[in-house]
Amino acid sequence: MNLEPRVDPKDIIDYLLHHQSRWLAPGPRSDIVISSRIRLARNLSNYPFPHRAQDKDLVEAREKIYSALERLDRFRDRWFIDMESIAPVDRQFLVERHLISYEHTVDGLGKGVAITPDEGVSIMVNEEDHLRMQVLVAGFDLEQAWDEINLMDEELSEHLEFAFSPELGYLTACPTNTGTAMRGSLMMHLPALVITKQINRVLQTISQLNFTARGLYGEGTQAFGNIFQISNQSCLGYSEAELLGNINRIAKQIIGQEETAREKLIRTSRIMLEDRIWRAYGLLKNARIMNSAEALEYLSMVRLGIDLGLIKEVQLKLINDLFIIIQPAHLQKISGRRLSSRQRDIKRANILRNRLNQTFIKPDMDQEERGNV
Amino acid sequence: MNLEPRVDPKDIIDYLLHHQSRWLAPGPRSDIVISSRIRLARNLSNYPFPHRAQDKDLVEAREKIYSALERLDRFRDRWFIDMESIAPVDRQFLVERHLISYEHTVDGLGKGVAITPDEGVSIMVNEEDHLRMQVLVAGFDLEQAWDEINLMDEELSEHLEFAFSPELGYLTACPTNTGTAMRGSLMMHLPALVITKQINRVLQTISQLNFTARGLYGEGTQAFGNIFQISNQSCLGYSEAELLGNINRIAKQIIGQEETAREKLIRTSRIMLEDRIWRAYGLLKNARIMNSAEALEYLSMVRLGIDLGLIKEVQLKLINDLFIIIQPAHLQKISGRRLSSRQRDIKRANILRNRLNQTFIKPDMDQEERGNV
Repeated sequence: MNLEPRVDPKDIIDYLLHHQSRWLAPGPRSDIVISSRIRLARNLSNYPFPHRAQDKDLVEAREKIYSALERLDRFRDRWFIDMESIAPVDRQFLVERHLISYEHTVDGLGKGVAITPDEGVSIMVNEEDHLRMQVLVAGFDLEQAWDEINLMDEELSEHLEFAFSPELGYLTACPTNTGTAMRGSLMMHLPALVITKQINRVLQTISQLNFTARGLYGEGTQAFGNIFQISNQSCLGYSEAELLGNINRIAKQIIGQEETAREKLIRTSRIMLEDRIWRAYGLLKNARIMNSAEALEYLSMVRLGIDLGLIKEVQLKLINDLFIIIQPAHLQKISGRRLSSRQRDIKRANILRNRLNQTFIKPDMDQEERGNV
Repeated sequence: MNLEPRVDPKDIIDYLLHHQSRWLAPGPRSDIVISSRIRLARNLSNYPFPHRAQDKDLVEAREKIYSALERLDRFRDRWFIDMESIAPVDRQFLVERHLISYEHTVDGLGKGVAITPDEGVSIMVNEEDHLRMQVLVAGFDLEQAWDEINLMDEELSEHLEFAFSPELGYLTACPTNTGTAMRGSLMMHLPALVITKQINRVLQTISQLNFTARGLYGEGTQAFGNIFQISNQSCLGYSEAELLGNINRIAKQIIGQEETAREKLIRTSRIMLEDRIWRAYGLLKNARIMNSAEALEYLSMVRLGIDLGLIKEVQLKLINDLFIIIQPAHLQKISGRRLSSRQRDIKRANILRNRLNQTFIKPDMDQEERGNV
């Protein structure tokens, strides 16, 4: 049994703030696929589903899950955060890092999350289901994500009894997840399909194949920065291997279409494309006020510029990181205080400038700028 | 008598292309006043005004004026260019350098110009009047310009007989110039008055005082780059000294208003102003295609940034120079060939980028970009 005291959530969030998630590093085909994610939903057989459970049941189930996780050999470094123990800005911070869902930030007792320090694994407790396990890896590599999550699932099932039906498979709060309860998704950067206006046709095809495409921050969010999350819609009637095979096939098609669109842009509109990319880079390195949508658009262009070999002095992982840290909660955690929308736009421009110029602005300059909002 | 052969116009234009006009250097109050110009109109008493003269008279008058100029001690280094001997692009090039008027580029025999290598003095021959002498100096310094042009005028009158009436003064083709036939003008950079939307009120006041404000390229041209040419409207009824006194008084008022507007902007909208200035700088250093209006607007912002001490690494005279060399004829002279509008936009971006980054783009890169238009 693990008898170490659990780490203070404040220290966890502080650690995360100063470290980069492992899935932001370059990986296979990371010119187009930022990251691969597999999520499994599981429920305890002897507790009601979270939305029907009493607070006391939720708290008890959470502790049971934490304890089981503490007994896993393959999951030695992991931290637990109870949602009710952290401030709304910290919950938002975890959403921005893709460690929890937006739904998980809503007030209520018994919600929690377990995460590894490298942020490759996160397990939401008492979200829609008792467990929502996810493994995130860099680039296009669902196999690696599957291997990790499958081992964890198997080990965990030795300590917890999951709700399972021999006919239906894993039982879940929402019937669309029942079956494998597995969702595989790829975060894809598709600027050329957007610029050439082919993206809607591609997304239509995806939805006809029973897949969904969402924006950067999950269901219903707009596709800022030309980033799309492609994932399977149904979990029932296929094995995990079949589902993964389907996602891989579709992903390869989309990658091919994005590649073709990029080649066509270079062939027919090279100077226009270069102009757009370099202007975006120039604005990111020089602006003093910048809102989120504008920043994501320019970062997308610079990412494309790196992929095309036009911009050589910037590393891909820096751009991936900037996509995350220019979000509102990150800006406020970095500043150590609450910021108005206007102050965030200034701070955002500040960070983009500093990181991309690899220099530091003097603190008094920062103060000065704050003073002139 | 000067017996040296006259310099080939090709060599003159080539020389100018590779040298900066003296009036683009910093001068008194060059944060707001780019240059001061005085122009005197003179006509030969024994020739008809150019618009009523025969070709033969025009050619004869021109040679007479050239010969007189060759006899001046104070005007040893001077070149003559006959308008009919140079291509339209070269005439346009001289317009862009403010050495001749647009009207002087129109086809016709007998038109010419005499210029000093530093471009401080230019004398159009057979434009509206037989002589249109101008002296251009850097910054706010009408006195210096006056001293130079007055000496030249006096010396020249020893060799040429000017049409003069004791009651009216110097006689000119257009009655608005009759009298002193002197026009003083200041090229002023007034971005803060434009940003704060006070410029129209200022221009209205100017016109009530019988002064005119024109854009960068003379009569009727739009005020691109927030640059305005302020000059006296009437030449009659005042002495030269009185006219200069009036221009100086009005100029000082406008300078004061622009200063106040700049201070107010810094006090109330510093971050917005900085954002605009730095974005402009970032775009100039990075864009791959840029039209003239856009370039002038950004150069104006960078000039303001230099004046306000925000941008320290760029010299004012470089920006002044860029205002000139991004014009169409300059771009074509630099390229050594005819360029389409699109090609000019690419070349313009290229030059701005090179000069502001103080690096050189490899020739093959330039080729490549041309090839992809």
